[in-house]
Amino acid sequence: TLVLLAPPPTTHAPAARARRTKMAADGGGEPDHLARERATAQFDVDGMKVAWAGSRHAVEVADRMARLVASDPVFRKDTRTMLSRKELFKDTLKKAAHAWKRIVELRLTEEEANLLRLYVDQPGYVDLHWGMFVPAIKGQGTEEQQKKWLPMAYKFQIIGCYAQTELGHGSNVQGLETTATFDPSTDEFVMHSPTLTSSKWWPGGLGKASTHAVVYARLITEGKDYGIHGFIVQLRSLDDHSPLPGVTLGDIGGKFGSGAYNSMDNGVLRFDHVRIPRDQMLMRLSQVTREGKYVHSDVPKQLLYGTMVYVRQTIVADASKALSRAVCIAVRYSAIRKQFGSQDGGPETQVLNYKTQQSRLFPLLASAYAYRFVGQWLKWLYTDVNQKLEAKDYSTLPEAHACTAGLKSVTTSATADAIEECRKLCGGHGYLNSSGLPELFAVYVPACTYEGDNVVLLLQVARFLMKTVSQVAAGKQPVGTIAYMGNIQHLMQCKSAVNTAEDWLNPAAIKEVFEARALRMAVNCAQNISKAPSQEEGFSELSPDLLEAAVAHVQLIIVTKFIEKLQEDIPGPGVKEQLQKLCSIYALHLLHKHLGDFLSTGCVTARQGALANELLGKLYAQVRPNAVALVDAFDYTDHYLGSVLGRYDGDVYPALYEEAWKDPLNETVVPDGYQEHLRPLLKQQLKLSRL
Amino acid sequence: TLVLLAPPPTTHAPAARARRTKMAADGGGEPDHLARERATAQFDVDGMKVAWAGSRHAVEVADRMARLVASDPVFRKDTRTMLSRKELFKDTLKKAAHAWKRIVELRLTEEEANLLRLYVDQPGYVDLHWGMFVPAIKGQGTEEQQKKWLPMAYKFQIIGCYAQTELGHGSNVQGLETTATFDPSTDEFVMHSPTLTSSKWWPGGLGKASTHAVVYARLITEGKDYGIHGFIVQLRSLDDHSPLPGVTLGDIGGKFGSGAYNSMDNGVLRFDHVRIPRDQMLMRLSQVTREGKYVHSDVPKQLLYGTMVYVRQTIVADASKALSRAVCIAVRYSAIRKQFGSQDGGPETQVLNYKTQQSRLFPLLASAYAYRFVGQWLKWLYTDVNQKLEAKDYSTLPEAHACTAGLKSVTTSATADAIEECRKLCGGHGYLNSSGLPELFAVYVPACTYEGDNVVLLLQVARFLMKTVSQVAAGKQPVGTIAYMGNIQHLMQCKSAVNTAEDWLNPAAIKEVFEARALRMAVNCAQNISKAPSQEEGFSELSPDLLEAAVAHVQLIIVTKFIEKLQEDIPGPGVKEQLQKLCSIYALHLLHKHLGDFLSTGCVTARQGALANELLGKLYAQVRPNAVALVDAFDYTDHYLGSVLGRYDGDVYPALYEEAWKDPLNETVVPDGYQEHLRPLLKQQLKLSRL
Ligand SMILES: Cc1cc2nc3c(=O)[nH]c(=O)nc-3n(C[C@H](O)[C@H](O)[C@H](O)COP(=O)(O)OP(=O)(O)OC[C@H]3O[C@@H](n4cnc5c(N)ncnc54)[C@H](O)[C@@H]3O)c2cc1C
Ligand SMILES: Cc1cc2nc3c(=O)[nH]c(=O)nc-3n(C[C@H](O)[C@H](O)[C@H](O)COP(=O)(O)OP(=O)(O)OC[C@H]3O[C@@H](n4cnc5c(N)ncnc54)[C@H](O)[C@@H]3O)c2cc1C
Repeated sequence: TLVLLAPPPTTHAPAARARRTKMAADGGGEPDHLARERATAQFDVDGMKVAWAGSRHAVEVADRMARLVASDPVFRKDTRTMLSRKELFKDTLKKAAHAWKRIVELRLTEEEANLLRLYVDQPGYVDLHWGMFVPAIKGQGTEEQQKKWLPMAYKFQIIGCYAQTELGHGSNVQGLETTATFDPSTDEFVMHSPTLTSSKWWPGGLGKASTHAVVYARLITEGKDYGIHGFIVQLRSLDDHSPLPGVTLGDIGGKFGSGAYNSMDNGVLRFDHVRIPRDQMLMRLSQVTREGKYVHSDVPKQLLYGTMVYVRQTIVADASKALSRAVCIAVRYSAIRKQFGSQDGGPETQVLNYKTQQSRLFPLLASAYAYRFVGQWLKWLYTDVNQKLEAKDYSTLPEAHACTAGLKSVTTSATADAIEECRKLCGGHGYLNSSGLPELFAVYVPACTYEGDNVVLLLQVARFLMKTVSQVAAGKQPVGTIAYMGNIQHLMQCKSAVNTAEDWLNPAAIKEVFEARALRMAVNCAQNISKAPSQEEGFSELSPDLLEAAVAHVQLIIVTKFIEKLQEDIPGPGVKEQLQKLCSIYALHLLHKHLGDFLSTGCVTARQGALANELLGKLYAQVRPNAVALVDAFDYTDHYLGSVLGRYDGDVYPALYEEAWKDPLNETVVPDGYQEHLRPLLKQQLKLSRL
Repeated sequence: TLVLLAPPPTTHAPAARARRTKMAADGGGEPDHLARERATAQFDVDGMKVAWAGSRHAVEVADRMARLVASDPVFRKDTRTMLSRKELFKDTLKKAAHAWKRIVELRLTEEEANLLRLYVDQPGYVDLHWGMFVPAIKGQGTEEQQKKWLPMAYKFQIIGCYAQTELGHGSNVQGLETTATFDPSTDEFVMHSPTLTSSKWWPGGLGKASTHAVVYARLITEGKDYGIHGFIVQLRSLDDHSPLPGVTLGDIGGKFGSGAYNSMDNGVLRFDHVRIPRDQMLMRLSQVTREGKYVHSDVPKQLLYGTMVYVRQTIVADASKALSRAVCIAVRYSAIRKQFGSQDGGPETQVLNYKTQQSRLFPLLASAYAYRFVGQWLKWLYTDVNQKLEAKDYSTLPEAHACTAGLKSVTTSATADAIEECRKLCGGHGYLNSSGLPELFAVYVPACTYEGDNVVLLLQVARFLMKTVSQVAAGKQPVGTIAYMGNIQHLMQCKSAVNTAEDWLNPAAIKEVFEARALRMAVNCAQNISKAPSQEEGFSELSPDLLEAAVAHVQLIIVTKFIEKLQEDIPGPGVKEQLQKLCSIYALHLLHKHLGDFLSTGCVTARQGALANELLGKLYAQVRPNAVALVDAFDYTDHYLGSVLGRYDGDVYPALYEEAWKDPLNETVVPDGYQEHLRPLLKQQLKLSRL
């Protein structure tokens, strides 16, 4: 265990002294080093908090839960990156149990409980239990099965995980090798791992915590392989938590970063002919009868889409959370950090004033808002999809599916890159764990891989786009996020009418070129595919271009949803104006970044591109005085941010300094190893080398 | 300490069994799962090794040193990411001492010793001792000072580091706050840290290992501040390693990743009026006399540039090493990994066959080679600069300085991104520490920040470009890497003559458009700056565009040096042909990625851009059968790669499986914390929540 030393008194002195002086100057209380930044805001931060959170109620409940977590010593995470794997995992178990205790004691609502878990901010088995195990049973279990298993899961009498991926197969679920062979003589399924690569590998919570899992396996009955189905399998004894006979369980080892996702017991699982009752197959969509007959139920397969839309919607929401945390840290620190530009001993320039810093950072700030709003829209889409499913209207499902797949891919990829860019924007100090950014990156990046590899997902979007193009060509009118493709006549030949930089402020001008670019790229691909010997060959050959067409389509969706958000009533002085600027920045920075697309499809001229760039510069200048207030509107506690650079009060340097002394390496002044490995070197009487 | 368990026998069985079977099928010996890939290579791998390493001798010595390290158990690093900070640091001390012992025992040459340290592959105080402390004394010390200090440093009787950066100042060296005040009464300098932000912060080796440092501080004498100068300061007792009176030392805490750069004791240092003899000021360029007079020597300042070119050249060389390691892992694993595409139970598709995988990976493979060759050229440039310095010819220095600054920036930024892309290319398994990629990324990324923040460096390049443009306008003929700007008449109006995809294979066609793009972007910026109220204002307003212009210029340099390399004699059947393809891929993927630049500056048409893209697809197909052999040519041992996914023999799955069981979390089947935090939860009789 760690001994956390206070900094040695001599060195600590200046920090403490500095603080005391500042407090005195302030007339008591902690000084706010960002006060001047906050004073320059041209909008109502409170109103922006409501726009960000979605409602006044959402602000209030999030705030309450965030403070609850921040004030509870069990939820401390400031030394997390220094814990050994075992300590960290134990800490996760402790936090999960404590969170559950609080949830029960305080009789929290589901909304409150979810927020509490969010602010605990430590991946753990609970995420999979609530996020995958319970939804899998809800979505794929019969009513009877739900009645049997869900109450136990709700009370944590069992802990469940989602065991799909294997050592050999992730993206290709149909290639999974685990078998579930029906044995009519005992009315049981025999779960088995026939090869090394059939070992379940990656499921979160599987390694150490879970007592149960939904296991995906090839269903074999009457000698026939019916493909992949889900089964509820008990893995561990409920008495002493030891693995049941025939079950091998373990953790798959350390992952990216310190702290980060290492709090999770991603696991390996092997079955050696493990028997489970027949009724533990998830039977909502198909069943095996007592005799071993495989039969389909009359429930349509499409019902499963609802869960997928739900899960991906949460992932997009998480993207905006992770991105906004990183941006909050980078903006605040860039306002504190000064470097160069001092004239005659005067103050140096805040690095936030450098145009390059702005051009790297403000598009990310805008992206955080953009993802937030598209996430809010996805929430609506989820209810809409569910209503349609209930009304047995499956017509919009492919579109909803493609749209959520694309948004998951684009927002997570961009967020991962953006967190790392925010880290770089903090210079050297961003590389310290105490900045919070390394852990934020390491814990976030797997979002690009899990729930669908981002490239595989974009290819699905591309397939949908190609289908849509051919349907449009056949005269069908597309709906939802692909409705714009119906406007093919205009969009294939239009040229942007933008003539001055300010013309780009017009949402219609933006929308037109994003639509034209997306459609033309899709049509281009479709035409090139049609030249290939076969559709499949063409698709495969063209797949790098198809990725780009898919990205263009998804970016259009995000831009459009941002624009639509701004057509709503948004209360609070100046709030909508700020969001309009961020919307323009979001769209125009994409236009600049992908200028090749816009120019080569001919919807924008080089001069118009230059005008967009010119406007971007002006918008950055307008956002500058509002930057700190715009990240304050995320309403994050210092606990949740977990960054000495992102502190609300901006008192960065004493915090950095004090944090350093917590490192175990500072327990002694002369390091462990000096006697064995340094002293002999320094005192050596070795023959000289030829150096 | 870690107890490394063997996998439990039941689970281990399939792996072991599988291995035995394969070996038997192979007729004994370890099977090579990549043998078929190696057989399809269309060039002489041995010849490519020579091209990569630079000479037959270089291949041989690198190979010898790599094996020396790989076969020595002290240099094992397979459990590095599992060590606590203290264990890891002690391990670094141990490895450093052992490496030194081997270097002395085996009487290694400097070349051999450097390679040995490279393959030990663990950042530590030695890097700064040899890489910064010694060069600083060599470059800035008088002959007398060199005579006094270097022999001690060469024998490790003292350990030195480079203490420049402070808590408050990194990029802006002139803003450092540490003071060195001359006291004529005792003929000493008084080193002092007047503020919290003046604490030295970041220097590698400072926290725990170094006995000495070159400290940069404001020289104050006769009441006047003469700005930043270097001083040799003893920090710790040579008897017991305790900090000297008035010196506070510590480690600044955990950094990005596990393992990675945490082996290094980046440190904090504060002085409380610490006295050092006057002759420990580094006096080559300027001196303080016994009386306290500040005088300049007649040695020209420019001499310091030599060191800078040297250090940056090593950084570019390191970029090609880090990138090639990541690419090697991703290529080999992509050839092993199969996913989708099985027809009728036949084998699935190797993911390396997917065009999207190729379009993401092969440009990185090409970049590794491109950086390698530009690095070799930089080595030449360094000797050239030194010769010119000796001949007192300073004319080419600004160009060499801008060129190395730009290459440092562009290659390190691209390499950091590329390592992460390689990680993603490995799907979920790339997220495991055992893949080696997380640590490779975490240990590499600070190269974007140290030795000059990459954005700050590009702005320096941009300043140089603006100056060059105005000189060219004034009729001056530029030389070296900016010689092309002399061709301004042609380059400002030329249009590419490319008419078929294959026309892009012509190096002259490539060079022309890269030159035209770079020049036009620079001239554009210069023209826009001239419209601003002042040059400074214009530069600052335009700085985001200037970054892009600088990148365009640096990419041109890399492309040009690759093309020039191919004009040399490159022995070995097929070797040059492969490199030609990689050169085309390197250039054309940049053209595609930055198509907006090429189109908006009018040197390329949309159709020509599409042709380039078409050719890229064909080139990927041609590289495909050579991909594994092209990474074999890097000649890396499995030890150096440190990746179960990148194993030479491709036997990935058993290795992944076995690696998992080493995690400390697998020491027990039932996890520590079960009794306290899981059992009560599972057995709870809590009131139900409202959930
Ligand atoms: C942190 C983390 C948590 C996880 N949690 C769980 C969990 O709880 N339960 C669970 O079951 N699983 C879990 N997983 C596994 C995860 O779902 C898979 O890793 C993911 O589906 C990707 O599959 P893969 O790893 O097989 O990648 P691969 O499919 O092997 O991808 C490798 C490369 O091949 C490319 N590729 C693959 N197929 C194609 C194609 N058809 N066309 C073009 N390119 C292709 C990919 O783009 C990628 O570049 C988790 C993974 C991680 C990293
Ligand atoms: C792993 C590691 C090892 C190190 N080792 C050493 C060592 O051995 N010895 C040593 O002395 N130092 C060392 N350093 C410190 C390193 O040299 C500095 O971190 C580096 O110089 C960057 O300076 P900074 O951290 O002050 O960044 P800052 O300058 O604070 O950068 C913050 C942001 O401001 C921007 N910015 C700054 N100035 C400008 C400008 N003029 N125009 C536009 N944008 C600007 C940057 O681009 C960046 O986005 C190390 C750092 C690291 C991370």
